[in-house]
Amino acid sequence: LLLLSDALRRRVVADERPFDALPSADDHVILAGYGRFGQIVARVLKLKKVQVTALDLDPAQVDVIRRFGFEIYYGDAARVDLLRAAGAERARLFVLAIDDPAASVRTAEVVREGFPGLRMVARARNREHAHKLVALGVEHVVRETYASSLEAAAIALEEIGFPGGQASAAVDRFRQYDEQLLQEQLEFRDDEDDERYIARTRHFTKELEQIFEQDQQAET
Amino acid sequence: LLLLSDALRRRVVADERPFDALPSADDHVILAGYGRFGQIVARVLKLKKVQVTALDLDPAQVDVIRRFGFEIYYGDAARVDLLRAAGAERARLFVLAIDDPAASVRTAEVVREGFPGLRMVARARNREHAHKLVALGVEHVVRETYASSLEAAAIALEEIGFPGGQASAAVDRFRQYDEQLLQEQLEFRDDEDDERYIARTRHFTKELEQIFEQDQQAET
Repeated sequence: LLLLSDALRRRVVADERPFDALPSADDHVILAGYGRFGQIVARVLKLKKVQVTALDLDPAQVDVIRRFGFEIYYGDAARVDLLRAAGAERARLFVLAIDDPAASVRTAEVVREGFPGLRMVARARNREHAHKLVALGVEHVVRETYASSLEAAAIALEEIGFPGGQASAAVDRFRQYDEQLLQEQLEFRDDEDDERYIARTRHFTKELEQIFEQDQQAET
Repeated sequence: LLLLSDALRRRVVADERPFDALPSADDHVILAGYGRFGQIVARVLKLKKVQVTALDLDPAQVDVIRRFGFEIYYGDAARVDLLRAAGAERARLFVLAIDDPAASVRTAEVVREGFPGLRMVARARNREHAHKLVALGVEHVVRETYASSLEAAAIALEEIGFPGGQASAAVDRFRQYDEQLLQEQLEFRDDEDDERYIARTRHFTKELEQIFEQDQQAET
Protein backbone atom coordinates (compact mmCIF):
# COMPACT_ATOMS: atom_id res chain seq x y z
CA LEU A 1 0.00 0.00 0.00
CA LEU A 2 2.86 2.33 0.79
CA LEU A 3 4.38 1.53 -2.60
CA LEU A 4 1.04 2.14 -4.24
CA SER A 5 0.43 5.50 -2.59
CA ASP A 6 3.99 6.52 -3.38
CA ALA A 7 3.49 5.61 -7.03
CA LEU A 8 0.22 7.57 -7.11
CA ARG A 9 1.76 10.57 -5.41
CA ARG A 10 4.61 10.60 -7.91
CA ARG A 11 2.21 10.34 -10.79
CA VAL A 12 0.18 13.29 -9.51
CA VAL A 13 3.30 15.38 -9.03
CA ALA A 14 4.54 14.39 -12.48
CA ASP A 15 1.20 15.23 -14.10
CA GLU A 16 1.02 18.61 -12.42
CA ARG A 17 4.36 19.77 -13.72
CA PRO A 18 4.30 20.71 -17.39
CA PHE A 19 7.06 19.37 -19.61
CA ASP A 20 10.00 21.72 -20.09
CA ALA A 21 10.19 23.74 -23.31
CA LEU A 22 13.03 22.25 -25.33
CA PRO A 23 15.43 24.48 -27.24
CA SER A 24 15.45 23.83 -30.98
CA ALA A 25 18.88 22.58 -31.99
CA ASP A 26 20.81 21.43 -35.06
CA ASP A 27 23.40 18.70 -35.46
CA HIS A 28 22.77 17.47 -31.95
CA VAL A 29 22.30 14.09 -30.36
CA ILE A 30 18.96 13.48 -28.65
CA LEU A 31 19.26 11.27 -25.60
CA ALA A 32 16.19 9.80 -23.93
CA GLY A 33 16.54 8.46 -20.39
CA TYR A 34 19.15 9.88 -18.06
CA GLY A 35 19.56 6.97 -15.69
CA ARG A 36 22.71 4.97 -14.94
CA PHE A 37 23.14 4.15 -18.62
CA GLY A 38 22.17 7.40 -20.33
CA GLN A 39 24.25 9.64 -18.13
CA ILE A 40 27.48 7.81 -18.96
CA VAL A 41 26.77 8.16 -22.68
CA ALA A 42 25.89 11.86 -22.23
CA ARG A 43 29.03 12.58 -20.21
CA VAL A 44 31.34 10.99 -22.80
CA LEU A 45 29.61 12.84 -25.67
CA LYS A 46 29.80 16.12 -23.78
CA LEU A 47 33.53 15.68 -23.23
CA LYS A 48 33.94 15.30 -26.99
CA LYS A 49 32.04 18.62 -27.41
CA VAL A 50 28.99 16.94 -28.91
CA GLN A 51 25.77 18.85 -28.29
CA VAL A 52 23.33 16.64 -26.43
CA THR A 53 19.63 17.27 -25.83
CA ALA A 54 18.81 15.01 -22.90
CA LEU A 55 15.28 14.13 -21.80
CA ASP A 56 14.01 12.27 -18.79
CA LEU A 57 10.52 11.51 -17.50
CA ASP A 58 11.42 11.68 -13.81
CA PRO A 59 11.18 15.32 -12.67
CA ALA A 60 13.05 14.67 -9.41
CA GLN A 61 15.90 13.03 -11.32
CA VAL A 62 16.00 15.98 -13.73
CA ASP A 63 16.31 18.43 -10.84
CA VAL A 64 19.13 16.46 -9.20
CA ILE A 65 21.11 16.15 -12.44
CA ARG A 66 20.79 19.88 -13.08
CA ARG A 67 22.42 20.52 -9.71
CA PHE A 68 25.46 18.65 -11.00
CA GLY A 69 25.69 21.13 -13.87
CA PHE A 70 24.20 19.06 -16.71
CA GLU A 71 21.61 20.30 -19.20
CA ILE A 72 18.60 18.06 -19.15
CA TYR A 73 14.90 18.53 -19.78
CA TYR A 74 11.81 17.04 -18.22
CA GLY A 75 9.82 15.53 -21.08
CA ASP A 76 8.46 12.39 -22.72
CA ALA A 77 10.63 11.25 -25.63
CA ALA A 78 7.69 9.29 -27.07
CA ARG A 79 5.90 12.59 -27.88
CA VAL A 80 6.52 13.37 -31.54
CA ASP A 81 5.53 17.05 -31.13
CA LEU A 82 8.11 17.47 -28.39
CA LEU A 83 10.82 15.81 -30.51
CA ARG A 84 9.92 17.95 -33.51
CA ALA A 85 10.13 21.12 -31.39
CA ALA A 86 13.58 20.03 -30.24
CA GLY A 87 14.75 19.70 -33.85
CA ALA A 88 14.72 15.92 -34.18
CA GLU A 89 14.65 16.32 -37.97
CA ARG A 90 18.11 17.84 -37.84
CA ALA A 91 19.54 15.56 -35.15
CA ARG A 92 22.55 13.39 -35.90
CA LEU A 93 21.59 10.48 -33.69
CA PHE A 94 19.00 9.29 -31.20
CA VAL A 95 20.30 7.54 -28.09
CA LEU A 96 17.50 5.51 -26.51
CA ALA A 97 18.59 4.86 -22.92
CA ILE A 98 15.19 4.36 -21.27
CA ASP A 99 15.27 1.41 -18.83
CA ASP A 100 11.63 0.32 -18.98
CA PRO A 101 11.20 -1.99 -22.01
CA ALA A 102 7.61 -0.94 -22.80
CA ALA A 103 8.43 2.79 -22.73
CA SER A 104 11.61 2.15 -24.70
CA VAL A 105 9.83 0.22 -27.46
CA ARG A 106 7.06 2.84 -27.65
CA THR A 107 9.69 5.57 -28.05
CA ALA A 108 11.56 3.60 -30.72
CA GLU A 109 8.32 3.23 -32.66
CA VAL A 110 7.56 6.96 -32.48
CA VAL A 111 11.08 7.91 -33.57
CA ARG A 112 11.13 5.36 -36.39
CA GLU A 113 7.78 6.56 -37.71
CA GLY A 114 8.21 10.30 -37.15
CA PHE A 115 11.86 10.59 -38.21
CA PRO A 116 12.68 7.65 -40.50
CA GLY A 117 16.17 8.94 -41.29
CA LEU A 118 17.25 9.33 -37.66
CA ARG A 119 19.61 6.53 -36.65
CA MET A 120 19.36 4.99 -33.19
CA VAL A 121 21.57 3.43 -30.53
CA ALA A 122 19.46 1.70 -27.89
CA ARG A 123 19.84 0.13 -24.47
CA ALA A 124 18.04 -3.20 -23.99
CA ARG A 125 17.12 -4.82 -20.72
CA ASN A 126 17.29 -8.39 -21.97
CA ARG A 127 17.13 -10.55 -25.08
CA GLU A 128 13.40 -10.13 -25.53
CA HIS A 129 13.67 -6.35 -25.39
CA ALA A 130 16.66 -6.47 -27.75
CA HIS A 131 14.67 -8.57 -30.22
CA LYS A 132 11.85 -6.03 -30.27
CA LEU A 133 14.21 -3.13 -30.90
CA VAL A 134 16.05 -4.96 -33.68
CA ALA A 135 12.71 -5.84 -35.28
CA LEU A 136 11.86 -2.11 -35.30
CA GLY A 137 15.04 -1.42 -37.25
CA VAL A 138 17.07 0.15 -34.43
CA GLU A 139 20.61 0.26 -35.82
CA HIS A 140 22.54 -0.59 -32.64
CA VAL A 141 21.15 -2.50 -29.68
CA VAL A 142 23.29 -2.88 -26.56
CA ARG A 143 22.17 -5.26 -23.81
CA GLU A 144 22.61 -3.28 -20.61
CA THR A 145 24.34 -5.81 -18.31
CA TYR A 146 26.00 -7.85 -21.04
CA ALA A 147 29.42 -6.21 -21.33
CA SER A 148 29.86 -5.97 -17.55
CA SER A 149 28.95 -9.63 -17.07
CA LEU A 150 31.61 -10.57 -19.63
CA GLU A 151 34.10 -8.40 -17.75
CA ALA A 152 33.23 -10.22 -14.54
CA ALA A 153 33.69 -13.55 -16.35
CA ALA A 154 37.18 -12.52 -17.50
CA ILE A 155 38.09 -11.36 -13.98
CA ALA A 156 36.82 -14.68 -12.57
CA LEU A 157 38.91 -16.69 -15.03
CA GLU A 158 42.02 -14.71 -14.14
CA GLU A 159 41.29 -15.04 -10.41
CA ILE A 160 41.30 -18.83 -10.67
CA GLY A 161 44.55 -18.92 -12.59
CA PHE A 162 43.94 -18.54 -16.32
CA PRO A 163 46.46 -16.22 -17.95
CA GLY A 164 44.94 -12.85 -18.95
CA GLY A 165 45.25 -13.59 -22.65
CA GLN A 166 43.30 -16.84 -22.36
CA ALA A 167 40.60 -15.21 -20.24
CA SER A 168 39.96 -12.40 -22.71
CA ALA A 169 40.14 -14.77 -25.69
CA ALA A 170 37.48 -17.00 -24.09
CA VAL A 171 35.22 -14.02 -23.50
CA ASP A 172 35.69 -12.72 -27.05
CA ARG A 173 34.91 -16.12 -28.47
CA PHE A 174 31.83 -16.51 -26.28
CA ARG A 175 30.58 -13.09 -27.27
CA GLN A 176 31.01 -13.71 -30.96
CA TYR A 177 28.88 -16.86 -30.82
CA ASP A 178 26.35 -15.52 -28.36
CA GLU A 179 25.64 -12.56 -30.62
CA GLN A 180 25.19 -14.97 -33.49
CA LEU A 181 22.67 -16.88 -31.35
CA LEU A 182 20.80 -13.63 -30.64
CA GLN A 183 20.52 -13.03 -34.38
CA GLU A 184 19.27 -16.57 -35.02
CA GLN A 185 16.74 -16.34 -32.22
CA LEU A 186 15.19 -13.35 -33.98
CA GLU A 187 13.67 -15.78 -36.45
CA PHE A 188 11.48 -17.45 -33.87
CA ARG A 189 11.20 -14.87 -31.15
CA ASP A 190 7.49 -15.52 -30.58
CA ASP A 191 8.19 -19.08 -29.43
CA GLU A 192 10.32 -18.09 -26.45
CA ASP A 193 8.64 -20.55 -24.06
CA ASP A 194 8.64 -23.23 -26.66
CA GLU A 195 10.39 -26.55 -26.68
CA ARG A 196 11.82 -25.49 -30.03
CA TYR A 197 13.48 -22.44 -28.49
CA ILE A 198 14.92 -24.52 -25.66
CA ALA A 199 16.11 -27.23 -28.04
CA ARG A 200 17.78 -24.63 -30.27
CA THR A 201 19.54 -22.98 -27.35
CA ARG A 202 20.73 -26.35 -26.06
CA HIS A 203 22.00 -27.24 -29.51
CA PHE A 204 23.84 -23.95 -29.72
CA THR A 205 25.37 -24.45 -26.28
CA LYS A 206 26.65 -27.85 -27.39
CA GLU A 207 28.16 -26.28 -30.53
CA LEU A 208 29.83 -23.61 -28.43
CA GLU A 209 31.22 -26.28 -26.08
CA GLN A 210 32.76 -28.09 -29.03
CA ILE A 211 34.37 -24.89 -30.27
CA PHE A 212 35.87 -24.26 -26.84
CA GLU A 213 37.14 -27.82 -26.69
CA GLN A 214 38.88 -27.37 -30.04
CA ASP A 215 40.38 -24.12 -28.73
CA GLN A 216 41.68 -25.90 -25.66
CA GLN A 217 43.22 -28.72 -27.70
CA ALA A 218 44.89 -26.14 -29.94
CA GLU A 219 46.34 -24.43 -26.85
CA THR A 220 47.83 -27.57 -25.31
CA LEU B 1 -2.78 -4.43 -4.42
CA LEU B 2 -2.25 -6.94 -7.21
CA LEU B 3 1.48 -6.43 -6.91
CA LEU B 4 1.25 -6.92 -3.15
CA SER B 5 -0.77 -10.14 -3.36
CA ASP B 6 1.57 -11.42 -6.05
CA ALA B 7 4.57 -10.74 -3.84
CA LEU B 8 2.88 -12.48 -0.91
CA ARG B 9 1.92 -15.46 -3.03
CA ARG B 10 5.48 -15.83 -4.29
CA ARG B 11 6.83 -15.61 -0.78
CA VAL B 12 4.49 -18.34 0.42
CA VAL B 13 5.43 -20.60 -2.50
CA ALA B 14 9.12 -19.92 -1.88
CA ASP B 15 8.79 -20.64 1.84
CA GLU B 16 6.99 -23.90 1.21
CA ARG B 17 9.72 -25.32 -0.98
CA PRO B 18 12.77 -26.43 0.99
CA PHE B 19 16.17 -25.37 -0.28
CA ASP B 20 17.92 -27.91 -2.49
CA ALA B 21 20.64 -30.05 -0.91
CA LEU B 22 23.92 -28.82 -2.36
CA PRO B 23 26.64 -31.26 -3.35
CA SER B 24 29.90 -30.76 -1.48
CA ALA B 25 32.59 -29.79 -3.96
CA ASP B 26 36.29 -28.89 -4.08
CA ASP B 27 38.12 -26.34 -6.22
CA HIS B 28 34.86 -24.96 -7.51
CA VAL B 29 33.47 -21.50 -8.04
CA ILE B 30 30.35 -20.61 -6.08
CA LEU B 31 28.03 -18.32 -7.99
CA ALA B 32 25.11 -16.59 -6.25
CA GLY B 33 22.35 -15.13 -8.43
CA TYR B 34 21.58 -16.65 -11.81
CA GLY B 35 19.93 -13.67 -13.48
CA ARG B 36 21.04 -11.85 -16.66
CA PHE B 37 24.46 -11.22 -15.17
CA GLY B 38 25.23 -14.45 -13.35
CA GLN B 39 24.25 -16.74 -16.17
CA ILE B 40 26.74 -15.14 -18.58
CA VAL B 41 29.54 -15.59 -16.04
CA ALA B 42 28.47 -19.20 -15.40
CA ARG B 43 28.31 -20.03 -19.10
CA VAL B 44 31.80 -18.68 -19.78
CA LEU B 45 33.25 -20.54 -16.77
CA LYS B 46 31.52 -23.74 -17.79
CA LEU B 47 33.00 -23.52 -21.29
CA LYS B 48 36.45 -23.31 -19.72
CA LYS B 49 35.63 -26.51 -17.76
CA VAL B 50 35.47 -24.70 -14.43
CA GLN B 51 33.18 -26.38 -11.92
CA VAL B 52 30.47 -23.95 -10.85
CA THR B 53 28.02 -24.34 -7.96
CA ALA B 54 25.23 -21.91 -8.82
CA LEU B 55 22.55 -20.76 -6.40
CA ASP B 56 19.44 -18.71 -6.94
CA LEU B 57 16.59 -17.69 -4.62
CA ASP B 58 13.89 -17.76 -7.29
CA PRO B 59 12.55 -21.34 -7.53
CA ALA B 60 10.74 -20.69 -10.83
CA GLN B 61 13.96 -19.31 -12.36
CA VAL B 62 15.88 -22.35 -11.10
CA ASP B 63 13.40 -24.70 -12.75
CA VAL B 64 13.55 -22.86 -16.09
CA ILE B 65 17.35 -22.80 -16.14
CA ARG B 66 17.51 -26.53 -15.40
CA ARG B 67 15.42 -27.16 -18.51
CA PHE B 68 18.21 -25.51 -20.53
CA GLY B 69 20.62 -28.11 -19.16
CA PHE B 70 22.41 -26.05 -16.50
CA GLU B 71 23.15 -27.21 -12.96
CA ILE B 72 21.71 -24.78 -10.47
CA TYR B 73 20.34 -25.06 -6.95
CA TYR B 74 17.52 -23.31 -5.14
CA GLY B 75 19.07 -21.78 -2.05
CA ASP B 76 19.99 -18.64 -0.15
CA ALA B 77 23.66 -17.73 -0.57
CA ALA B 78 23.51 -15.66 2.62
CA ARG B 79 23.09 -18.85 4.70
CA VAL B 80 26.49 -19.81 6.07
CA ASP B 81 25.40 -23.40 6.84
CA LEU B 82 24.34 -23.90 3.24
CA LEU B 83 27.63 -22.48 1.95
CA ARG B 84 29.62 -24.66 4.33
CA ALA B 85 27.72 -27.78 3.19
CA ALA B 86 28.56 -26.86 -0.41
CA GLY B 87 32.26 -26.74 0.43
CA ALA B 88 32.77 -22.96 0.48
CA GLU B 89 35.96 -23.51 2.51
CA ARG B 90 37.52 -25.24 -0.47
CA ALA B 91 36.07 -22.95 -3.17
CA ARG B 92 38.43 -21.01 -5.45
CA LEU B 93 36.21 -17.97 -5.86
CA PHE B 94 32.82 -16.54 -4.94
CA VAL B 95 30.93 -14.74 -7.74
CA LEU B 96 28.27 -12.49 -6.21
CA ALA B 97 25.80 -11.78 -9.02
CA ILE B 98 22.67 -11.00 -6.98
CA ASP B 99 20.81 -7.99 -8.41
CA ASP B 100 19.16 -6.66 -5.24
CA PRO B 101 21.68 -4.44 -3.40
CA ALA B 102 20.46 -5.28 0.12
CA ALA B 103 20.58 -9.06 -0.47
CA SER B 104 23.93 -8.69 -2.22
CA VAL B 105 25.51 -6.76 0.65
CA ARG B 106 24.10 -9.19 3.21
CA THR B 107 25.60 -12.10 1.28
CA ALA B 108 28.98 -10.35 0.96
CA GLU B 109 29.01 -9.84 4.74
CA VAL B 110 28.23 -13.51 5.42
CA VAL B 111 30.90 -14.72 2.99
CA ARG B 112 33.52 -12.30 4.32
CA GLU B 113 32.87 -13.32 7.91
CA GLY B 114 32.36 -17.05 7.36
CA PHE B 115 35.11 -17.62 4.80
CA PRO B 116 37.67 -14.83 5.17
CA GLY B 117 40.06 -16.34 2.63
CA LEU B 118 37.48 -16.68 -0.14
CA ARG B 119 37.99 -14.00 -2.80
CA MET B 120 34.97 -12.33 -4.39
CA VAL B 121 33.92 -10.82 -7.72
CA ALA B 122 30.68 -8.87 -7.32
CA ARG B 123 28.05 -7.22 -9.47
CA ALA B 124 26.95 -3.75 -8.28
CA ARG B 125 23.75 -1.97 -9.24
CA ASN B 126 25.14 1.54 -8.88
CA ARG B 127 27.87 3.60 -7.24
CA GLU B 128 26.33 3.41 -3.77
CA HIS B 129 26.10 -0.38 -3.95
CA ALA B 130 29.67 -0.53 -5.31
CA HIS B 131 30.89 1.60 -2.39
CA LYS B 132 29.34 -0.76 0.14
CA LEU B 133 30.90 -3.83 -1.47
CA VAL B 134 34.33 -2.21 -1.70
CA ALA B 135 34.05 -1.17 1.97
CA LEU B 136 33.41 -4.84 2.86
CA GLY B 137 36.65 -5.79 1.16
CA VAL B 138 35.18 -7.40 -1.97
CA GLU B 139 38.17 -7.80 -4.30
CA HIS B 140 36.49 -6.95 -7.62
CA VAL B 141 33.36 -4.85 -8.01
CA VAL B 142 31.80 -4.50 -11.47
CA ARG B 143 29.02 -1.95 -11.99
CA GLU B 144 26.38 -3.85 -13.94
CA THR B 145 25.44 -1.35 -16.70
CA TYR B 146 28.74 0.49 -16.80
CA ALA B 147 30.65 -1.37 -19.52
CA SER B 148 27.62 -1.50 -21.82
CA SER B 149 26.97 2.22 -21.44
CA LEU B 150 30.58 2.90 -22.42
CA GLU B 151 30.12 0.65 -25.45
CA ALA B 152 27.02 2.62 -26.42
CA ALA B 153 29.01 5.86 -26.02
CA ALA B 154 31.73 4.57 -28.37
CA ILE B 155 29.10 3.49 -30.91
CA ALA B 156 27.44 6.93 -30.67
CA LEU B 157 30.75 8.72 -31.27
CA GLU B 158 31.46 6.56 -34.32
CA GLU B 159 27.92 7.07 -35.62
CA ILE B 160 28.37 10.84 -35.65
CA GLY B 161 31.68 10.65 -37.44
CA PHE B 162 34.54 10.20 -34.99
CA PRO B 163 37.08 7.66 -36.22
CA GLY B 164 36.94 4.36 -34.31
CA GLY B 165 40.32 4.94 -32.67
CA GLN B 166 39.27 8.32 -31.28
CA ALA B 167 35.98 6.93 -30.00
CA SER B 168 37.59 4.09 -28.09
CA ALA B 169 40.39 6.33 -26.79
CA ALA B 170 37.80 8.78 -25.41
CA VAL B 171 35.95 5.98 -23.67
CA ASP B 172 39.15 4.50 -22.21
CA ARG B 173 40.18 7.91 -20.90
CA PHE B 174 36.76 8.56 -19.41
CA ARG B 175 36.75 5.17 -17.73
CA GLN B 176 40.18 5.65 -16.21
CA TYR B 177 39.16 8.93 -14.57
CA ASP B 178 35.68 7.84 -13.63
CA GLU B 179 37.08 4.86 -11.74
CA GLN B 180 39.47 7.19 -9.97
CA LEU B 181 36.47 9.34 -8.97
CA LEU B 182 34.71 6.25 -7.62
CA GLN B 183 37.73 5.53 -5.43
CA GLU B 184 37.86 9.11 -4.16
CA GLN B 185 34.15 9.14 -3.41
CA LEU B 186 34.69 6.20 -1.07
CA GLU B 187 36.18 8.65 1.41
CA PHE B 188 32.96 10.55 1.89
CA ARG B 189 30.31 8.07 0.82
CA ASP B 190 27.98 8.99 3.69
CA ASP B 191 27.59 12.54 2.39
CA GLU B 192 26.03 11.51 -0.90
CA ASP B 193 23.30 14.15 -0.76
CA ASP B 194 25.71 16.73 0.45
CA GLU B 195 26.82 19.93 -1.18
CA ARG B 196 30.33 18.66 -0.63
CA TYR B 197 29.68 15.59 -2.74
CA ILE B 198 28.14 17.66 -5.51
CA ALA B 199 30.97 20.18 -5.41
CA ARG B 200 33.56 17.40 -5.56
CA THR B 201 31.84 15.76 -8.53
CA ARG B 202 31.57 19.10 -10.34
CA HIS B 203 35.22 19.78 -9.70
CA PHE B 204 36.12 16.37 -11.04
CA THR B 205 33.99 16.89 -14.14
CA LYS B 206 35.83 20.15 -14.77
CA GLU B 207 39.17 18.39 -14.40
CA LEU B 208 38.05 15.70 -16.83
CA GLU B 209 36.93 18.36 -19.33
CA GLN B 210 40.36 19.96 -19.17
CA ILE B 211 42.03 16.61 -19.81
CA PHE B 212 39.82 16.02 -22.85
CA GLU B 213 40.58 19.50 -24.12
CA GLN B 214 44.29 18.82 -23.86
CA ASP B 215 43.75 15.55 -25.73
CA GLN B 216 41.91 17.35 -28.48
CA GLN B 217 44.61 19.97 -28.81
CA ALA B 218 47.22 17.24 -29.02
CA GLU B 219 45.21 15.55 -31.78
CA THR B 220 44.83 18.66 -33.96
